[in-house]
Amino acid sequence: MTSAAEAFRPAARVAGQKQDVWSIVNEAAASSPVQPIVNMGQGFFGYNPPQFVIDAAKQSLDRVDCNQYAPTKGRPRLKKALADAYSPFYGRTLNPETEITITTGANEGMLSAFMAFIESGDEVIIFEPFFDQYISNIEMAGGVIKYVPMHPPVKGAIETSSASEWRIDIEELKKAITPKTKMIVLNTPHNPVGKVLSKEELEAIGELCVKNNILILSDEVYDRLYYVPFTRIATLSPELYNLTLTVGSGGKNFYATGWRVGWLIGPEHLIKYVSAAHTRICYSSVSPLQEATAIGFEEADKHGFWDESKKEMQGKVRKFNEIWDELGLPYSDPEGGYFVVVNMEKVKLPDDYVFPPHVAERPRDFKLSWFLIMEVGVAAIPPTEFYTKENAHIAENYLRFAVCKNDDVLEEAKARLRGLKKFIQA
Amino acid sequence: MTSAAEAFRPAARVAGQKQDVWSIVNEAAASSPVQPIVNMGQGFFGYNPPQFVIDAAKQSLDRVDCNQYAPTKGRPRLKKALADAYSPFYGRTLNPETEITITTGANEGMLSAFMAFIESGDEVIIFEPFFDQYISNIEMAGGVIKYVPMHPPVKGAIETSSASEWRIDIEELKKAITPKTKMIVLNTPHNPVGKVLSKEELEAIGELCVKNNILILSDEVYDRLYYVPFTRIATLSPELYNLTLTVGSGGKNFYATGWRVGWLIGPEHLIKYVSAAHTRICYSSVSPLQEATAIGFEEADKHGFWDESKKEMQGKVRKFNEIWDELGLPYSDPEGGYFVVVNMEKVKLPDDYVFPPHVAERPRDFKLSWFLIMEVGVAAIPPTEFYTKENAHIAENYLRFAVCKNDDVLEEAKARLRGLKKFIQA
Ligand SMILES: Cc1ncc(COP(=O)(O)O)c(C=O)c1O
Ligand SMILES: Cc1ncc(COP(=O)(O)O)c(C=O)c1O
Repeated sequence: MTSAAEAFRPAARVAGQKQDVWSIVNEAAASSPVQPIVNMGQGFFGYNPPQFVIDAAKQSLDRVDCNQYAPTKGRPRLKKALADAYSPFYGRTLNPETEITITTGANEGMLSAFMAFIESGDEVIIFEPFFDQYISNIEMAGGVIKYVPMHPPVKGAIETSSASEWRIDIEELKKAITPKTKMIVLNTPHNPVGKVLSKEELEAIGELCVKNNILILSDEVYDRLYYVPFTRIATLSPELYNLTLTVGSGGKNFYATGWRVGWLIGPEHLIKYVSAAHTRICYSSVSPLQEATAIGFEEADKHGFWDESKKEMQGKVRKFNEIWDELGLPYSDPEGGYFVVVNMEKVKLPDDYVFPPHVAERPRDFKLSWFLIMEVGVAAIPPTEFYTKENAHIAENYLRFAVCKNDDVLEEAKARLRGLKKFIQA
Repeated sequence: MTSAAEAFRPAARVAGQKQDVWSIVNEAAASSPVQPIVNMGQGFFGYNPPQFVIDAAKQSLDRVDCNQYAPTKGRPRLKKALADAYSPFYGRTLNPETEITITTGANEGMLSAFMAFIESGDEVIIFEPFFDQYISNIEMAGGVIKYVPMHPPVKGAIETSSASEWRIDIEELKKAITPKTKMIVLNTPHNPVGKVLSKEELEAIGELCVKNNILILSDEVYDRLYYVPFTRIATLSPELYNLTLTVGSGGKNFYATGWRVGWLIGPEHLIKYVSAAHTRICYSSVSPLQEATAIGFEEADKHGFWDESKKEMQGKVRKFNEIWDELGLPYSDPEGGYFVVVNMEKVKLPDDYVFPPHVAERPRDFKLSWFLIMEVGVAAIPPTEFYTKENAHIAENYLRFAVCKNDDVLEEAKARLRGLKKFIQA
């Protein structure tokens, strides 16, 4: 017989949770005297998917087969649409039956990849800052994480620079590789820093992976939002294709983060295990919205959607960043995606300002975030959450703003952020 | 450095998969000379969700917030609608913020429950036959499964009887309990046998769980389809509520298995860890279809939906089973759900009939399934797949038919099944 205490004891993987950054920011936003808050925290879109995709979803809801279980590997039409859309990038014809599998968002897709290949004690390399779900997903599979920092622009505190200035040190990466290294996770365009990994960087990383037989999980959920040339590592050579799983997200591509449609593309000998893991995790993914996503890919070019999407987002980035130029706060100009990290070293928090204990005990970026929410009514994310404790200091003066919001919201944010002027030291 | 072979080696949890029953049956169906096949294999509905729920889904697709990430614990409206719908059964007011969490179908909900409480070596008791996903989900969390068989009706091969005749032996259950037993999984109404656990059975099981501090995961996805009085174990006493997680499925409730909306109801000290696990697995679940499911619950009574749903399904069961009465093949008359298991001991397979190797090596029910697909064009599921190897013999003469299909499909199935007559021994 077990005791009641033992019976109710949670597994280590979910026990002892500290409050996550999203709920800290959301709760602060809810308690701000400035209401409604302008929320540039979480990376969801402030507007709807394009009408042709919404219409496709509505039509799918009238079809019996679209309302019932999709095949575990995904609806054939979506796999076909993805094969058609991505084959040109790969310079070869992707087989929709064996080289593509559909998942419940990119997130569960990555978990499926870790569950498919990582066993207790296997090492996985990720760069800091990282998308926070990587950590729990790798740990759930029993993996051990090795961190390699991205280095911020040297003059990040004093001048604006391209996000390309966040640098990866290949020697540091080499040192992180051990005989137990099974996988490396890449993210390009990058959340939160907005860097697009250059062809040269990808070649250097790829060479190490081929030489050491390391699987690559390339998180490319922002793959339609790049403002400099974009390279997909899986397309660089057959050797790299052979060991790479590329992750995509219908939610990010079509402004529908709540739809939970994602996918992985890769060679059959990897994909088959990813879909086996996915089947065990979710069984299958949301059926009518898979069909809508398929139609989205089929019709995107006809609507000029990809070009417009990129142009529109780049316009939002430019317009929003005017406020930092005006205030003299340096930022990383993103090469892709929809996040801007701003360096707030110059923002002087009043000495007698009172922060609640759960904020006071965190690095300075949490205080900056709290201060902006309470004083000017704009919510942004403290990025030290995307670092290990050791390296958190790298980001303690930054805040991350998501610009995937309506233009009037961005204008309102800018107007409010002008209220920071009096706290900025020249 | 790892070798290429090591690099590509899948994790044990997905390696060495034998072909699953669904793909064996689907492939057989595709290769049958009788086309189109009448597919009574998988438990998806042959018709659409009710119009008021489809309309709700379409309206949700016009709303920005419904297209973006839902809160990880679920959309507030759905949690509220579930609290309102289920509080009367519990005789207390469920708190939508703390006692309900939304998941990606019941399936990922159960995985979240196992991930929340099961650690390596913890034992989980399940009854045979079982819903097959339990196995991989428990194993993914590191759990060790202890099986307790349900015993088929003694005269199952010679006469039709109520599904209640599938018996649980409480002494056998007692013997399966050890100091390592952490959880037991119940399923009522039961897939595949159609049994609704009686209040007395639930009390006996519940008493053992309370005495031994064993968590209960009660899979009640067919909770709106019962044809005898239905008891929810969590409602039997505060002690039982305290250690029970009850699983529900919007897909099963509203004929929308492809929507992937499920939930767990239980005390805060259990639910909070389930939602922590769910956040790590899927982040959040499909947003617009959560809203539609909420509206479904809000409006179901107004449309008389639950009563009609039950009456309609019971009608399908009755009508379909006429063919077995006609053929003289005994079956278990379901007390709930939409599956019928039929005993085919009397069906004589021709001695010289040639089965493909992957069927020939399986128990007799796989051969029966293959034979029906090829000779009469009706697909059903061999239930030994839902047993351990040791106990598979219990079910080797049964086949499972899903009756959640349109009436004309059921009539066509009956017409075709008449073709079995010449193979039946008196
Ligand atoms: C880098 C990165 N990867 C993956 C995801 C998750 O994508 P999805 O919503 O498709 O699960 C996100 C979402 O913010 C992200 O920023
Ligand atoms: C007993 C049982 N539990 C759970 C499920 C899964 O439900 P969902 O589709 O909501 O994941 C099924 C589906 O067939 C089932 O039969």
